[in-house]
Amino acid sequence: MSILGIVVEYNPFHNGHAYHLKQSRKTTNPELTVAVMSGNFVQRGEPAIIEKFARTEMALKAGVDLVIQLPLVYSIQDAGGFARGAVWLLDYLGVTDMVFGSESGNLDLLNEVASVLVEEPEEYLVLLRKYLDEGFSFPNARKFAIRDYLTGNDDNRAMSIEEIGSSNNILGLEYIRSLKELKSKIKPHLIKRIGAHYHDEKHYETYSSATAIRKCVIKEDWEKVKSGVPDYSYQIIHRELANGKGPVSIECMESFLLPFLRTFDRDEMKKYYGFVEGLDARFKECASNCATINEFFSCVKAKRFTYTRIKRLLLNLVFHIKDELIKKSYDEGPQYIRILGFNEKGRDYLSEIKRELRIPLLTTPSRWAKVLKSSEKSGEIDADLFFKQFMLDIKETEIHSSFYKDKTLIRETSELKSRPVYMRS
Amino acid sequence: MSILGIVVEYNPFHNGHAYHLKQSRKTTNPELTVAVMSGNFVQRGEPAIIEKFARTEMALKAGVDLVIQLPLVYSIQDAGGFARGAVWLLDYLGVTDMVFGSESGNLDLLNEVASVLVEEPEEYLVLLRKYLDEGFSFPNARKFAIRDYLTGNDDNRAMSIEEIGSSNNILGLEYIRSLKELKSKIKPHLIKRIGAHYHDEKHYETYSSATAIRKCVIKEDWEKVKSGVPDYSYQIIHRELANGKGPVSIECMESFLLPFLRTFDRDEMKKYYGFVEGLDARFKECASNCATINEFFSCVKAKRFTYTRIKRLLLNLVFHIKDELIKKSYDEGPQYIRILGFNEKGRDYLSEIKRELRIPLLTTPSRWAKVLKSSEKSGEIDADLFFKQFMLDIKETEIHSSFYKDKTLIRETSELKSRPVYMRS
Repeated sequence: MSILGIVVEYNPFHNGHAYHLKQSRKTTNPELTVAVMSGNFVQRGEPAIIEKFARTEMALKAGVDLVIQLPLVYSIQDAGGFARGAVWLLDYLGVTDMVFGSESGNLDLLNEVASVLVEEPEEYLVLLRKYLDEGFSFPNARKFAIRDYLTGNDDNRAMSIEEIGSSNNILGLEYIRSLKELKSKIKPHLIKRIGAHYHDEKHYETYSSATAIRKCVIKEDWEKVKSGVPDYSYQIIHRELANGKGPVSIECMESFLLPFLRTFDRDEMKKYYGFVEGLDARFKECASNCATINEFFSCVKAKRFTYTRIKRLLLNLVFHIKDELIKKSYDEGPQYIRILGFNEKGRDYLSEIKRELRIPLLTTPSRWAKVLKSSEKSGEIDADLFFKQFMLDIKETEIHSSFYKDKTLIRETSELKSRPVYMRS
Repeated sequence: MSILGIVVEYNPFHNGHAYHLKQSRKTTNPELTVAVMSGNFVQRGEPAIIEKFARTEMALKAGVDLVIQLPLVYSIQDAGGFARGAVWLLDYLGVTDMVFGSESGNLDLLNEVASVLVEEPEEYLVLLRKYLDEGFSFPNARKFAIRDYLTGNDDNRAMSIEEIGSSNNILGLEYIRSLKELKSKIKPHLIKRIGAHYHDEKHYETYSSATAIRKCVIKEDWEKVKSGVPDYSYQIIHRELANGKGPVSIECMESFLLPFLRTFDRDEMKKYYGFVEGLDARFKECASNCATINEFFSCVKAKRFTYTRIKRLLLNLVFHIKDELIKKSYDEGPQYIRILGFNEKGRDYLSEIKRELRIPLLTTPSRWAKVLKSSEKSGEIDADLFFKQFMLDIKETEIHSSFYKDKTLIRETSELKSRPVYMRS
């Protein structure tokens, strides 16, 4: 049986996503499509503009059969952590083919680079150490070390390899690396990205970036939203906003984030994941001297620290994520398969594979304690890690819903009351 | 030399305070008046409506010669902690007489009760244990144990003693207790409280409570504010608000506090001071289910837990205050004398006693590191405790100013740039 796996955020679902999904299915001709999706906080270190069940609906409308949540502990990390959590879940779910977009489109080269990262040959490590000693940031030192290791004197090849390290290819590279590290049998496929550039904020009709569309949603420029997303996606966005459930943005969170940052001492910040290279000092200094959250980001920004990294770091602080939890989550993987939604086909597949799954299915969140207990008995999971990962998924919903426009929803929204979306065909 | 010491909050300074100050000076006829004042967060577990330097001005205008800050670590604690920090500072400053208001007006009785608390005779401890075992909260068990211990069968006496334990006398009791425990030579005096009841929120012209006046300030009902406070106080309040520096209230902090509360797990809350008797579970549960901060307070409220206690607890969380810091602060006392303001007389007195002070004077906050270093050398202080107490005073200003109406002030307000208020006569 051919099962397609994709990793998505659909923040929100737009025409580019629809095209990508169509191409992915054309390439692999699957009997079933499974998506692992970020929940209420996404990989760029921001809240999702609308909550996860609405985005699950979009995915199902678009033809995905089964939507699984990428637990928060992975969804707000760098490409490495994000990819690792997602691939792990796809592997558990018995996916046979994985398709992802890439600017490069050169799968062989990605494979070659990923192998270096996994195998870490001595010669590569020497080069890496050299570049680090010269003061380059880790991602850059790594990029140059790989380039030198793989190319020798071939300048053209050097350029292509260096390109692999650029932001639009890095996620693809990390998918392949995770597949290798987890010894997964999933076959990776690349498709060329289409339309607007990831960071492009101008609106280009049919294929706008998610960033551009989010801006239009926030401005309530409905005509432009309409032209950039499929009709079902438009209807869902419109409904969610009309119901007072968004749009949620990092700017909405400003009146919380600024005083929140000021509650920390430097020493306290250091206890959380990612506060290295003096970032704790920068955070502390900038929190004291900034009046808006964007001022804060600009203040912390440096050549070595991208905006995305800073935002992710801030979320690690919000969610109290420490090194130990990250280490365990990367070593042991997700401890449950959290179902966000399915159609009939997806549901049938789940009941088919249920017994053979290596980690428990979590369909009804309120039953989490029972699920944990019975899985602990059978030795499938690390109970402490299950608990910590799931508490973060509860927390992500509590924090996200704190910023809904309709304040009564703050009281009523609860992860524990939620149920998966079931879409009849 | 006769030096009057008072402990104040002046949140804001009103006619009742002016009357109290006048009576206190009439009683003791001092050559100098020193006030220890809460900073930007006060004992009822809330932010001060306007910041500490404006309130210092009010005190100086009213005739106080020297204003000292009660460090935040004491200012937001229960009557015992608040009184201990304040009395300790008054004692360091060479105060000879202390005056405080009380509903009871019976100093002998207060003295008798305080002695029981300090000496803890075995018979009293047995009674205390008995009432605790019967399920009474600590304050109530204590009240009944003292009553039984001191009265035997005299019912009238029992009633007066029980009254000592009521909220309006408890602070006076704790002042006397602290004077005894610190073996201070300061002579305590009582004066009857005047005018509106502490918790009374209705406005009674001339002698309104601070609570009633704060409500009028928030509503900008300037006529009523004017009738309840001296003219200089009115001018200062008006100026501060016109400058966008308030009014700051717990309700202003709502959009910060609700998501902030949701960032904590139960286990994490337990690490902070005061989360006993299941309060961590109540906080967690209520944070998940409330949409406003007042809803949250009502949700946590129980017979055993007063609103004030809940608010103070919340501030312990905001300021990351742990048991160890409280224990050290109660055992070793304040580690510096932070000057908020003075007139000529106050300044002269300071230079006179400067050399004999047991802990360092902190007049210019930006010089804190130098002051710490030289005091550490001479063995006057616990350097770690000095650092922690002072960092909290910096933090209180950073958090407080986060809620100013004029957002540019959020950037510009800094404890380290502040200077004491000097008022020429």
